[in-house]
Amino acid sequence: MPPAVTRSTALLTDHYELTMLQAALRSGTAHRRSVFELFPRRLPEGRRYGVVAGVGRALDALEQFTFDASTLAALEDVVDAPTLDWLASYRFSGDVWGYGEGETYFPFSPLLVVESTFAEAVLLETLLLSIYNHDSAVASAASRMTLVAGDRPCIEMGSRRTHEEAAVAAARAAYVAGFAASSNLAARQRYGVPTTGTSAHSFTLLHDTEADAFRAQVDSLGRDTTLLVDTYDVTEAVRLAVEVAGPGLGAVRLDSGDLAVLATRVRAQLDALGATKTRIIVTSDLDEHAIAALAAAPVDGYGVGTELVTGSGHPTCGFVYKLVARESADGDLESVAKKSVDKVSVGGRKYALRRRTPSGVAEAEVVGIGHRPVDDGDDRALLVPLVRSGEVVGRESLEAARERHLRSRGELPVAIQQMSRGEPVIPTVHE
Amino acid sequence: MPPAVTRSTALLTDHYELTMLQAALRSGTAHRRSVFELFPRRLPEGRRYGVVAGVGRALDALEQFTFDASTLAALEDVVDAPTLDWLASYRFSGDVWGYGEGETYFPFSPLLVVESTFAEAVLLETLLLSIYNHDSAVASAASRMTLVAGDRPCIEMGSRRTHEEAAVAAARAAYVAGFAASSNLAARQRYGVPTTGTSAHSFTLLHDTEADAFRAQVDSLGRDTTLLVDTYDVTEAVRLAVEVAGPGLGAVRLDSGDLAVLATRVRAQLDALGATKTRIIVTSDLDEHAIAALAAAPVDGYGVGTELVTGSGHPTCGFVYKLVARESADGDLESVAKKSVDKVSVGGRKYALRRRTPSGVAEAEVVGIGHRPVDDGDDRALLVPLVRSGEVVGRESLEAARERHLRSRGELPVAIQQMSRGEPVIPTVHE
Repeated sequence: MPPAVTRSTALLTDHYELTMLQAALRSGTAHRRSVFELFPRRLPEGRRYGVVAGVGRALDALEQFTFDASTLAALEDVVDAPTLDWLASYRFSGDVWGYGEGETYFPFSPLLVVESTFAEAVLLETLLLSIYNHDSAVASAASRMTLVAGDRPCIEMGSRRTHEEAAVAAARAAYVAGFAASSNLAARQRYGVPTTGTSAHSFTLLHDTEADAFRAQVDSLGRDTTLLVDTYDVTEAVRLAVEVAGPGLGAVRLDSGDLAVLATRVRAQLDALGATKTRIIVTSDLDEHAIAALAAAPVDGYGVGTELVTGSGHPTCGFVYKLVARESADGDLESVAKKSVDKVSVGGRKYALRRRTPSGVAEAEVVGIGHRPVDDGDDRALLVPLVRSGEVVGRESLEAARERHLRSRGELPVAIQQMSRGEPVIPTVHE
Repeated sequence: MPPAVTRSTALLTDHYELTMLQAALRSGTAHRRSVFELFPRRLPEGRRYGVVAGVGRALDALEQFTFDASTLAALEDVVDAPTLDWLASYRFSGDVWGYGEGETYFPFSPLLVVESTFAEAVLLETLLLSIYNHDSAVASAASRMTLVAGDRPCIEMGSRRTHEEAAVAAARAAYVAGFAASSNLAARQRYGVPTTGTSAHSFTLLHDTEADAFRAQVDSLGRDTTLLVDTYDVTEAVRLAVEVAGPGLGAVRLDSGDLAVLATRVRAQLDALGATKTRIIVTSDLDEHAIAALAAAPVDGYGVGTELVTGSGHPTCGFVYKLVARESADGDLESVAKKSVDKVSVGGRKYALRRRTPSGVAEAEVVGIGHRPVDDGDDRALLVPLVRSGEVVGRESLEAARERHLRSRGELPVAIQQMSRGEPVIPTVHE
């Protein structure tokens, strides 16, 4: 179990959420029943599908969204005394539905539907968006990588290229989207993500000779370890690696140069030395395109860093959180939306299902406005209850999210296999 | 003062840092005196200069890099018992020099020089890189924005588009690079970054009419507030805003549409209504190019979100942390470097100064290998002591970092004003 993180999440938000609250408390509108929706207006340019991640983290953050004394003290110059009083007893008491973690999504998928009062729900805007925008960007990139990698494992090793806490979330999101392991030890501690790692160039350089370094590593970590063979000369290092560890050596890692050419050469050399089971792991600025280009090379695993944690060109999803319905003066729930040509919102409480053919292939994202779309018999409802009357009910294991992702991606048309740019692989239909 | 964050930072690292430690402890090389260097191999493509940020955060993280009982428990299946014993009493006891926070940098600038034993210094690799790579990416983008914005304030409002903790660090880094304020309340609490904010479209939509919303906001936040005028019809909203708040209205905000055209039209309308002092704030997917394009428009401030927190196309700096020298078997300090054509490292302990003309214009980044470059009389040393024998000595205020940034950027050749792609504005010279 991860250790409890006790810090309040309530200040991980924007100043204006608090000033809106203050003004609404004063004008008497703060407690109007309201529906907010978190959704994407589009996929990142050229992407065929997206992947939802961060659901479990959002539920944790929601539970910790309370205003303790030090939090309230920090807001003394931000809002007035009546607002501080109201915040002191704040606990979200509404309902939340959402796409399950690992689910695929498309433009206008209603990823979260938050029903509560305006006051309670508006405060969550920034934090929910931060978590969903970041984690889903990483998962969406990760899913394309694991898709093209096929049976070969992908290992997340991008911690050093992103904010130290974003790194932990990225390791978790990559795992949801099919990565086999991560280098990040905090992700292991908090979320149980499997971790791996052996050595860097500095370890080789620390020793007087490469042979000393290899011996030191094998002595300590065993023959099944992965030796890094590109500090000096690859051919000599591979020879030395097998000499030191024997043909039972676990793996060698290549971290520079033309990886396809090198891998082919190293495979031949390893086989000639009898190390036919020794695996070849490649790292060095890989993305989904580089992984696809290595499909025919004798590579046994991919270590992915920068391009994973930065969403492979799309470090954020552009999700927005909009008021789509609220109680009117006469007590009815009324649909609302900003009028805009460039920033489209669709008013109204949404429901969603994935329309499927009888053989189970996804055909459309059907979004019902104010009503549940009719299930044709082969369809799948997408919104699951996450919070009921303020109580988290949607918590699940990371393994469950991994399985959902595999199932959901497996339903999509085969066109997702293409790494080239294209339109969303299924259309979104409003009903 | 920010509240003390007591959580250990020791697991915000990669698995292999720990396995290297284990193997080095066993081979007897762990305590060899070592010098690690954190540096960029290049600037992001087309950029003329970079900005160092995260220094203060790195010093905080270093102080919290200790292995308490729960941290050690999490490592039980990662390393062996002797390694856990060694970690239990870990405290960094070495020396660190670095570029001051806010300083500009160029390819191969030795941003951090860490001198200690291998064991002590290798463990810091991932965490130092995470902090520097993220915070400097944001500061580098922010500096270009504040440069082209000139006297008009830039306000950071990107929290929702990045990981919730990265958002806090981004607000801090943007402030170092000249942003006037942020929307992020945790950045206010922890670092004293000024925050601002008034309302979103949801506040207008919550009320029965736009007039109701404007009245509610002005009643609560005063006439000096900023009213958001693009929920329905801009012209009608501006008329209404001045009617409700009077000509003393603080500002109006435009968040969609063609901002240059709209700002010009709104300025004329405000002036005609007598609201000649009412400012016009623009937001909506701005980056440095959009800010530059609005230079001639009657705009009084820029709110910047996504493109700031994602480093305006370059969300990470690509800094690396390499062993550049270590004690040899005979006790001397020996330069070391990986041999590689595509990943260049220069061995040896580095020193650095900014060569300047007699009139104070930067001419070159001079990096001395193993010795201090000679100051021609107009030059400026770049490395300052940050940690001495394990004690943090380089802590300073954010205001000091802001001032350093302005001075350092002010020294650079005027070519940095061009937002077009180019080479680093001064060359790096190794001596």
